[in-house]
Amino acid sequence: MVDKMEIFPIKTPIIKPGENLAEIILEAIYSQGLKLQDSDVIAVASKAVSIATNRIANLRKIEPSKRALKLARRYSLEPEFVELILRESEKIYGGVKKAILTIKNGILTVNAGIDHKNTPEGFAALWPLNPQVEADRLRRQIETKTGRKIGILIVDSEVSPLRLGTRGFALAISGFKPIRDYRNERDIYGRKILITLHSIADDLASAAHAVMGESAEQIPAVLIRNAPITLDENAKSKEMKIESGKCVYAGSFKL
Amino acid sequence: MVDKMEIFPIKTPIIKPGENLAEIILEAIYSQGLKLQDSDVIAVASKAVSIATNRIANLRKIEPSKRALKLARRYSLEPEFVELILRESEKIYGGVKKAILTIKNGILTVNAGIDHKNTPEGFAALWPLNPQVEADRLRRQIETKTGRKIGILIVDSEVSPLRLGTRGFALAISGFKPIRDYRNERDIYGRKILITLHSIADDLASAAHAVMGESAEQIPAVLIRNAPITLDENAKSKEMKIESGKCVYAGSFKL
Repeated sequence: MVDKMEIFPIKTPIIKPGENLAEIILEAIYSQGLKLQDSDVIAVASKAVSIATNRIANLRKIEPSKRALKLARRYSLEPEFVELILRESEKIYGGVKKAILTIKNGILTVNAGIDHKNTPEGFAALWPLNPQVEADRLRRQIETKTGRKIGILIVDSEVSPLRLGTRGFALAISGFKPIRDYRNERDIYGRKILITLHSIADDLASAAHAVMGESAEQIPAVLIRNAPITLDENAKSKEMKIESGKCVYAGSFKL
Repeated sequence: MVDKMEIFPIKTPIIKPGENLAEIILEAIYSQGLKLQDSDVIAVASKAVSIATNRIANLRKIEPSKRALKLARRYSLEPEFVELILRESEKIYGGVKKAILTIKNGILTVNAGIDHKNTPEGFAALWPLNPQVEADRLRRQIETKTGRKIGILIVDSEVSPLRLGTRGFALAISGFKPIRDYRNERDIYGRKILITLHSIADDLASAAHAVMGESAEQIPAVLIRNAPITLDENAKSKEMKIESGKCVYAGSFKL
């Protein structure tokens, strides 16, 4: 029989700027009567990482540029918020009411990942400055404190083309292979599989996002046990990106 | 404490055309020592539904059109396979090697959802003729046999823009609300949330896809227990679609 995968929501106090996220998460795990095991994956909301590492911006201190004022009118957003989007994004495509499509860290995302939900009044949360560094740091801190070999997954929300609602995706990973490569395996009829790569990191990010929710749940972390992962200390988040010449969307639209 | 969510992979024999999928899945669930509970969600791979309902096409009986021959050369695909894509899709955008971006059932998907992995030799699997009808039928059959109120989720694979690897998404649902609406809730600071909708169906589809895998796992079904869902007999899959005027991708590209 195949083992079941378990998804434990980890409820914490509200996280404040400068706090030690690894300690808060571990305390919350212990207070739920859980202990870490080797190969557990801890999924953390990117916003929790942003707040703990002071990646929040005071909107009242932002001076909107002319371009920000224009885009703010077009997309019904605050000018200060749009100014942050312009500063944070590598590229801007267009948008709809309340949402601008951007490239940030090479990732296609809405509003450069900036959000003011669940941030202190008057502040907006930006993506962690370097999600890979933060994922690696969290993993080292938790592995040192527990003696376990684990995976870390930084989770953010995204929307998909022509679909309603947000879902989770993996902003960064540490400690496990984000992509499973099936290219030398065979299907149930014994035929060789030619091209399938499976984004286990994105699937697990969605599994975590399902229980994190999007409002006042106070579940910034999720413990995933028995996930079909392979631990790998050298795995990097950039493995989840595709060359644009191989991306079917980039091949069809101007990305 | 919040309950953990459990993801049970359900291993079955190879499913053959015309077989009763509800019976196969229930037998496999029982043979793993499990019993259904109210509010369980059963996720089923779309390919299992396609094969059981005879939505497979004999590639040797397909006559490729001139357009199919041309696109087959351009994207390094079999002409018969491309002919099927042309017949199945509502719109074609473009593509890259081995992949054409299409609209099928109003969903942006690669190769109109057609795939010949894990299908009988010489055959390709098309999407179920009407995924909503199949999801409703499966739910009725399973609810009648067990007396439980459950959710059904038909899961397929997709790729995301600029991301490597496949992940799960919800092709159809039955019995539960696919979207959770947070618009009248408040965030952890008590501020009203204005626009967030959460695609719980897509998140759960990804959670199931994580353990289904993509090769010879023979796990066409997954039992999800304790998912944060609301049962709703009248919920429809079309609730997961967004009007293109509100879609940030459609607003930026020509979708």
